[in-house]
Amino acid sequence: MSGKLFVIGTGPGNPDQTTPQALAAISEASDFFGYKPYLDRLNLREDQTRHASDNREELARASAALDLALTGRTVAVVSGGDPGVFAMAAAVCEAVQHGRPEWRSINIEIVPGITAMLAVAARLGAPLGHDFCAMSLSDNLKPWDVIEARLKAAVTAGFVIALYNPISRARPWQLGRAFEIVAKLLPPATPIMFGRAAGRPDEQMLVAPLREAQAAMADMATCVIIGSAETRIIEREGHVPLVYSPRSIGSPAR
Amino acid sequence: MSGKLFVIGTGPGNPDQTTPQALAAISEASDFFGYKPYLDRLNLREDQTRHASDNREELARASAALDLALTGRTVAVVSGGDPGVFAMAAAVCEAVQHGRPEWRSINIEIVPGITAMLAVAARLGAPLGHDFCAMSLSDNLKPWDVIEARLKAAVTAGFVIALYNPISRARPWQLGRAFEIVAKLLPPATPIMFGRAAGRPDEQMLVAPLREAQAAMADMATCVIIGSAETRIIEREGHVPLVYSPRSIGSPAR
Repeated sequence: MSGKLFVIGTGPGNPDQTTPQALAAISEASDFFGYKPYLDRLNLREDQTRHASDNREELARASAALDLALTGRTVAVVSGGDPGVFAMAAAVCEAVQHGRPEWRSINIEIVPGITAMLAVAARLGAPLGHDFCAMSLSDNLKPWDVIEARLKAAVTAGFVIALYNPISRARPWQLGRAFEIVAKLLPPATPIMFGRAAGRPDEQMLVAPLREAQAAMADMATCVIIGSAETRIIEREGHVPLVYSPRSIGSPAR
Repeated sequence: MSGKLFVIGTGPGNPDQTTPQALAAISEASDFFGYKPYLDRLNLREDQTRHASDNREELARASAALDLALTGRTVAVVSGGDPGVFAMAAAVCEAVQHGRPEWRSINIEIVPGITAMLAVAARLGAPLGHDFCAMSLSDNLKPWDVIEARLKAAVTAGFVIALYNPISRARPWQLGRAFEIVAKLLPPATPIMFGRAAGRPDEQMLVAPLREAQAAMADMATCVIIGSAETRIIEREGHVPLVYSPRSIGSPAR
């Protein structure tokens, strides 16, 4: 008997940014797997069971969820933001590909959510208004030289870059190194954006020119957006500035 | 007297994927600007006014909305998907930067939404599960040689690529040319994904290997996702295949 596995994105944390589709899936599921802070945001009923875990045990969590779904339960794997962007959807697929053949019989439904870079961009203006990349700065799952090569390629080609997982206690130097790399390729006034808890009461938004950007401006919950040479700041009296990347360009950034 | 301007993303078209925040902003606004099909999806009250326009008059539409907000009205500029991704937020910012100085006094609030690539990815598996780019394939606002350079840079560096505005009557050859370019850099079996109306009753999802990908598989409402050399397909009996990009890699795509 195979049940169902939802992989649900609850959005960036403001309940007004969680979709009705996500709420319906949460209501339908009996068992919940996820990083504890994400599960804490759900208003579960007494008949719903939480299986909280550490943030770094993604593959083990996906496997446990698939095993339980196989018994006929309706299981939810919960991510903040969107589950398809540096979150649980890829881990679940990876588990299905390499794990028990029976897992392929499970009905898997992925419920999208608003990912952090979109929520942060909305609070700042339109920094992702033109071509952009999303990259994880974590070198837990890919070599650092790949990350450096991608940063250089993206900046040289003129993409704005949204960085996920910019820094952590175990990865203290990577963000500073990333700023050094892009500083060789972008003007010193290029806007660097640090967005944390977008749309939540503890929201923090900071915009600094590249020449002043510091790794200490971010923590593990920050989405860092590196502007392109085209990204502009509009000062406004009585309002925070707007940061945006124009829709039109004449030539690639150098 | 300055009013308020909302720039609202209604998500990909399934009402269950529109956030409560977007619905609240729609309820609060008196006047609505947007491409007619997006406005048609709203359930407006009799006291709310529609100002529909053609899809290509973005700057004029932003300026008209800002002018009306300046009179004290609460105005909404509506985009499908997310307003910050190849949509109206950048056009509004552009208008504010270059337009009437009074527009800078307007309270502008941008309401994010689920952008097409996230909705399409959720229906397919996790093709954006690792580093990825989003590019507009339209050469209306940037030269084609910039687009070619960005495609090459993104593929060479190993990014998955989500293409917005892949094709239209006025731009019939660009998508085919894009496939030719990436075919020189990626394995012939690389999955190319065509997602249309994700989550809606008329949804169409198609996955083809790069060697068989044709521009005719897309129309102007399709989001095309070009996999990387790492992107995998998991066949499942009784279910559609899952397409995903693993979280870990050993070396950059060549």
